[in-house]
Amino acid sequence: MSVKLLKEHLKRISKFQSASNLLHWDMLTNMPVAAGSWRAEVIGEISAHAFELFISDYTAELIDKAESGDLASQDKRVVELVKKDYSRLKKIPYELYKTFQIETSRSQKAWEEAKTKDNFDIFEPYLERVIKLLKEIIESIGYEDNRYDVLLDRYEPGLKTSELVNIIKELKTFLVAVVPEIEEKTLPLKRGVFEGCFSVYKQYKMAEEFLKLLGYDFNRGRLDTSEHPFTAFIGLGDVRITSNFKLDNLSHGFFALIHEFGHALYDLNIPQEFYGLPLGEGASMGIHESQSRFWENIIGRSFSFWEFARPIFVRHFPQLDSFTEEEFYNDANVVKRSLIRVYSDEVTYNLHIMLRFEIEEALINDRLSVKELPGVWNAKMKEYLNLVPINNRDGVLQDVHWSSGAFGYFPSYMLGNLYSAQIYYAMRSDVSEFDELVSKGDFTPIVNWLKEKIHKKGKLYDPKELIRIATGKEFDTSCFVRYIKEKYLGV
Amino acid sequence: MSVKLLKEHLKRISKFQSASNLLHWDMLTNMPVAAGSWRAEVIGEISAHAFELFISDYTAELIDKAESGDLASQDKRVVELVKKDYSRLKKIPYELYKTFQIETSRSQKAWEEAKTKDNFDIFEPYLERVIKLLKEIIESIGYEDNRYDVLLDRYEPGLKTSELVNIIKELKTFLVAVVPEIEEKTLPLKRGVFEGCFSVYKQYKMAEEFLKLLGYDFNRGRLDTSEHPFTAFIGLGDVRITSNFKLDNLSHGFFALIHEFGHALYDLNIPQEFYGLPLGEGASMGIHESQSRFWENIIGRSFSFWEFARPIFVRHFPQLDSFTEEEFYNDANVVKRSLIRVYSDEVTYNLHIMLRFEIEEALINDRLSVKELPGVWNAKMKEYLNLVPINNRDGVLQDVHWSSGAFGYFPSYMLGNLYSAQIYYAMRSDVSEFDELVSKGDFTPIVNWLKEKIHKKGKLYDPKELIRIATGKEFDTSCFVRYIKEKYLGV
Repeated sequence: MSVKLLKEHLKRISKFQSASNLLHWDMLTNMPVAAGSWRAEVIGEISAHAFELFISDYTAELIDKAESGDLASQDKRVVELVKKDYSRLKKIPYELYKTFQIETSRSQKAWEEAKTKDNFDIFEPYLERVIKLLKEIIESIGYEDNRYDVLLDRYEPGLKTSELVNIIKELKTFLVAVVPEIEEKTLPLKRGVFEGCFSVYKQYKMAEEFLKLLGYDFNRGRLDTSEHPFTAFIGLGDVRITSNFKLDNLSHGFFALIHEFGHALYDLNIPQEFYGLPLGEGASMGIHESQSRFWENIIGRSFSFWEFARPIFVRHFPQLDSFTEEEFYNDANVVKRSLIRVYSDEVTYNLHIMLRFEIEEALINDRLSVKELPGVWNAKMKEYLNLVPINNRDGVLQDVHWSSGAFGYFPSYMLGNLYSAQIYYAMRSDVSEFDELVSKGDFTPIVNWLKEKIHKKGKLYDPKELIRIATGKEFDTSCFVRYIKEKYLGV
Repeated sequence: MSVKLLKEHLKRISKFQSASNLLHWDMLTNMPVAAGSWRAEVIGEISAHAFELFISDYTAELIDKAESGDLASQDKRVVELVKKDYSRLKKIPYELYKTFQIETSRSQKAWEEAKTKDNFDIFEPYLERVIKLLKEIIESIGYEDNRYDVLLDRYEPGLKTSELVNIIKELKTFLVAVVPEIEEKTLPLKRGVFEGCFSVYKQYKMAEEFLKLLGYDFNRGRLDTSEHPFTAFIGLGDVRITSNFKLDNLSHGFFALIHEFGHALYDLNIPQEFYGLPLGEGASMGIHESQSRFWENIIGRSFSFWEFARPIFVRHFPQLDSFTEEEFYNDANVVKRSLIRVYSDEVTYNLHIMLRFEIEEALINDRLSVKELPGVWNAKMKEYLNLVPINNRDGVLQDVHWSSGAFGYFPSYMLGNLYSAQIYYAMRSDVSEFDELVSKGDFTPIVNWLKEKIHKKGKLYDPKELIRIATGKEFDTSCFVRYIKEKYLGV
């Protein structure tokens, strides 16, 4: 019985987090422009209150009480996760926590301005402060080998920097070798399928239809638009997707939609009884990204998918009728080294992540200063992608993550790519006539597989263990390598 | 200096209220259907936390500290208002407060169901509990003459039930005498201007245009749709309007829009430095309704307004071109006793309020039981409006107020009507060429008058005092009587 009080306490805290999630979603979708500064204060106050409740002595007391009783295995996991978070967060001085919240709000605004004006100098002092505070937080929490381990652990529990370095080394060798060959095999069409002039309203209506066909439950969600597409887990029965539809491009908004659908499906399938507890979220951000990247790339960029999707595209946009399924498929799969991570293809995407990881790891360990950042960025772009940005907007200023203090997040995308391939091959051997199902638009067996093997588990397992249980083998890079070889090199 | 801490404390509390306002707005505009029960818990948690912070001993301490120093006159008013609220709310046991919040959430859901199914029995036990709890709250707070005084004071500070009874007596005598005559003078057109088939999207676009022409600031607000139109004061720089556009009727959505615009304009013009303090809201709900009813009726149903508005309506809905300004005006001013308060005209509207007041005053003072309610409702409808509803949906179940525990609110609408007429005549004598301005759509002098005389004062004064200062005379019913006589009887 004694764990009950702990669970109630955690659920109570989650209500404040839920409010904060809505405030944040609204800020990015609906909020009038003049409301920004007050909104930042409200979010800060609510988050700080949730933090205070969590690091209170009362939490420690309830953990002790819970441990003194007999615990069912799920409750054991609850206590284990709470203890881990508690011991980590409790070490952060309250004032430092609050300052970090406020500084990262300010820093995001500065980054926006810097990006708009293509002026890194505006962002530089803010980023310096964020990194300084982050290092103070890391020092408060403590670490064994590498400061970066603390950051990684937030997003990918249990993963060490040294392991990540090995994964990257393997993958980099492979990619550097194959990218030029794949680029030659996937030349773009002269007239692109997805370029032209496409009513934003019609794109929205088509997106709604696709979400329904994929199995998104509009009774528990919505589709809106925002500058950067995202998924908001607002509360029980409330997981909302956004995308951003562009008049001159049909694929950006569409693949963003499918990507966010993957995130939303994960959150929606986590068991209700986990909600408000540490079990009630994804196993890690890497696993979360595996779900979004699975739908975006492995399903959404497969040939079978375009057999299914082409007629729907043509119905909404009759001007596309002259394109064949092959052309849709090919145009969705052009591999070409480019400047911008979010628009990059599934092969070169990981190279974008690697350079970001190297830079942030060096910044956090004082081997690189913020001042040197633009130069180092451009040098690494040359090294990894053989391209040099002509401005910082399309270079070091392109991503929001650092301004918000989310150092350590980028590897999640790469891990997501790797996990998704391993999940894919396991699923294919369980689900018969996989390609036929996709080409008919019958996604139920796929959704059910993901639900049973991944979603339903919530945070019961750390990511590596979850992958082992779900796929029947240890996590490694081989499935992703196989996937790329099969898809692009016909091996 | 010592008042500074009190003000900071109040502003902190207002951040939780602000979050709660957004949660509520979202619930009525955007929320997925399945999210309702979790949302109710989140709102309950956040509101209860704001309540706890407010009734804490810390607040009492800060009040004492503030009073020990020299106070500027505005700060004196802050302390006065806080003390009044504190001494009232402090007396309510926390558990009772929380139970009331939860019960009224449940009761609103039951009311919805009862109304949909036209079944009063579903609502009856919930309403009984709400009234029981409300009486307990009133007994905790204490009162001199009449339990209802406590309810009135929440919405109309300083007003006594006995005064209200006198106002109603005067007004009732007048209205009962003139309504039949006015009804004969304002017969509806054979083919109504506002009935037909009107694209909801076009209505929305026209509504946007009207809001801009009236001076609504979209940088600090939005227009959305919801089942019941309302205005949400979400936070600093964030006051949002909703309306509800019907395919078969153009006037309901339009007048609701203009009504809500009046509320929003008030909130938007309250000085920023009052925000988060008790000064940062309207003087009373009656004064608030005076602003909405002023725009809806006195401006929006004037002949000059239709000289201005007709071309805009015709541009959006060319099928209206055959109607003259007079026809628009006449159709917007048909007086006819009807069943539904929100659709009633400005003359008979007050009769709807009177019967509601009599019923709720009797309920709260144990002279009437919930069981007797439908019968008493119908009898009073017969007495006041010479109509008997054929079902409870269009009778006793039509309004949400009682289910949400908002007993004592209805008189605000009537007071708003009365205040608005007194404000109107004061404004007319200050603003030259009033009718010409309205017919040209130049609302700036009117907006500025309201801003200077009413909005800018926030809650510096109690309503009666504010009316005296703003209009130069004591509040009474004479202006409203004059307005009705001039407009409808050509006196």
